[in-house]
Amino acid sequence: MLQIVIAVIGKVKPPLTTLVLALLALVLFTAGSAALSQAAEPLGVPDREDIEYPDDEPPSDAELELGKTLFFDPRLSGNNRLSCASCHNPDLGFGDGLALGLGTQGNRLTRHTPHLYNLAWNTAFLWDGGAESLEEQVLEPIAARNEMSMPLDRLMVKLSRVPYYRNAFAKVYPEAGLIPETIARAIAAFERTLISDNSPFDRYMKGEPNAMSAAAIRGMKLFEGKANCIACHSGPNFTNESFHNLGLGDEDPARAAIVADDTLRGAFKTPGLRNVLLTAPYMHDGSLATLEAVVQFYNAGERKGATTSKLIKPLHLSETEIFDLVAFLGALTDPVIVARPEIPAGPDETESDAKHQ
Amino acid sequence: MLQIVIAVIGKVKPPLTTLVLALLALVLFTAGSAALSQAAEPLGVPDREDIEYPDDEPPSDAELELGKTLFFDPRLSGNNRLSCASCHNPDLGFGDGLALGLGTQGNRLTRHTPHLYNLAWNTAFLWDGGAESLEEQVLEPIAARNEMSMPLDRLMVKLSRVPYYRNAFAKVYPEAGLIPETIARAIAAFERTLISDNSPFDRYMKGEPNAMSAAAIRGMKLFEGKANCIACHSGPNFTNESFHNLGLGDEDPARAAIVADDTLRGAFKTPGLRNVLLTAPYMHDGSLATLEAVVQFYNAGERKGATTSKLIKPLHLSETEIFDLVAFLGALTDPVIVARPEIPAGPDETESDAKHQ
Repeated sequence: MLQIVIAVIGKVKPPLTTLVLALLALVLFTAGSAALSQAAEPLGVPDREDIEYPDDEPPSDAELELGKTLFFDPRLSGNNRLSCASCHNPDLGFGDGLALGLGTQGNRLTRHTPHLYNLAWNTAFLWDGGAESLEEQVLEPIAARNEMSMPLDRLMVKLSRVPYYRNAFAKVYPEAGLIPETIARAIAAFERTLISDNSPFDRYMKGEPNAMSAAAIRGMKLFEGKANCIACHSGPNFTNESFHNLGLGDEDPARAAIVADDTLRGAFKTPGLRNVLLTAPYMHDGSLATLEAVVQFYNAGERKGATTSKLIKPLHLSETEIFDLVAFLGALTDPVIVARPEIPAGPDETESDAKHQ
Repeated sequence: MLQIVIAVIGKVKPPLTTLVLALLALVLFTAGSAALSQAAEPLGVPDREDIEYPDDEPPSDAELELGKTLFFDPRLSGNNRLSCASCHNPDLGFGDGLALGLGTQGNRLTRHTPHLYNLAWNTAFLWDGGAESLEEQVLEPIAARNEMSMPLDRLMVKLSRVPYYRNAFAKVYPEAGLIPETIARAIAAFERTLISDNSPFDRYMKGEPNAMSAAAIRGMKLFEGKANCIACHSGPNFTNESFHNLGLGDEDPARAAIVADDTLRGAFKTPGLRNVLLTAPYMHDGSLATLEAVVQFYNAGERKGATTSKLIKPLHLSETEIFDLVAFLGALTDPVIVARPEIPAGPDETESDAKHQ
């Protein structure tokens, strides 16, 4: 419960915090936990005014350019072949299109590559919530031996030899300069700009009745009603930022490894659903391949294992209701187009070396 | 071979036809069939100048508006619930997101719903090529009992009672008026506008070296080389407009039912790959769910059954080569956004009746 209060505070601008806290306390004290279980945040259009920036300071253009350049630069991997964008590929919904991603050695990872849409509002990162901010999240896959395999001390040396980075870090972070924390800060600043908020759903919510098809409108009602997807996929970004075991039945401890709570064994973070059409395949293990397969998985509602969420139960959806839900999920599509930057050349690299993204 | 010649003629503007015929004849006579098997049309950007319109006349704005309105109008189905756009949903890559589509009775169809991207250049339509023009194709699913189940004579009556259609058909087709052929012509005119030609791949081909990632560029080379996808997915629209049995092993006679040639049993049309990311799942039966699964299917190259194409053979692609091919397929993404029109009200219908799309 405390976590929920903190999450709400984290998302509200200071002047509103007191009011929200008071209202929330009222709800908690008068209605107790029964009210809470129904308190899924309503669906809606994300509000860019609600984004919290580090030090309450939106990034400068120079910081964004630096972050974007780093995001696309394959120097951030040990073998100079993988950039953040290799696996979080803008052309593949900021994923990689694979069930399980690949590390620098062509080795398969154990969890599906998550997308990066609308993370600006998130409070938990990575499938197990092992990072509590975008900045904290960024460095982990760079340094991880099975992912980008680029030790941070060596990365500092590598980047400091590139004139563009020497100049850009000195300009954007005059006090701290080029350190792991400023690399993380620049990339996180760029990632916060990956916002999808003009889908047919958003245009419908903003008052265009024709923006969504009749099937998608029926699907939205099922999403909030009979199918109860909103129990977890709630709010403008379609995630409650919480952790649930869906009974996919693998041996990954997931959240339990972060919070040492065995009831959270196999519990993974609810992913946001914006641009979900572009981010196939699905689930933390990439084991469900299509939107239809995901809806059918929840419709079957087979509860496997002791810690599987009690929200998993048969939904009794008809074929046409599955069709309508898939239509609604498609209506969450608003691709984010990012022009790939030039990768800056280093002093002793050929251009083609630097261009491996 | 005659079919190929005709297909080429059909795509070239009259002044060029003679030249192309002469060149083609030269190739055929000098090099024989060995040359033909290597004559895959190169990949490229589609040329809107090459679109052939009925009567060589591009559609007027009024014809396009009529066609678009018909495309989205659920009156075109027997139960007023399904429009063309219900299954060819713009929010789902002009497909339905399902392995197999649904008819008006919630009945499953036997073939996967095909997308509608860049059909303006096509010469064969439907999975078995049973229609030779977009106009011919349009009426089939409307009248089919298991699809939209709307007998055309009754559709004429239904539409003629709607003032908008009475006026629009009289204006756009003053001689023919409202007949099945003009319905088909208006819808086909709209469908020809569903053009995707500004993907990262197109921008790369037009001279932006950063438009595609390094992985996608490597994937393109594999596509044209080692993986030999281009043997069938050739030309600016990534289809040779031909028919192949991939050994997916079902009992659908496919092309053999159209041309009475048993060697074409189970041979389906090569679909174009533009926006392939958006059109999951894949294959004529929707049996392959992700881009990765499709590449792995071809990589395995298991040739099942007597009429399976000899092009199906093991490709020996590594995991990173599969990654690169998926990245290239993602780079073919350039969604086509279509604003849904108002559905015109009829004389004795409530507005909500008309709005079921």
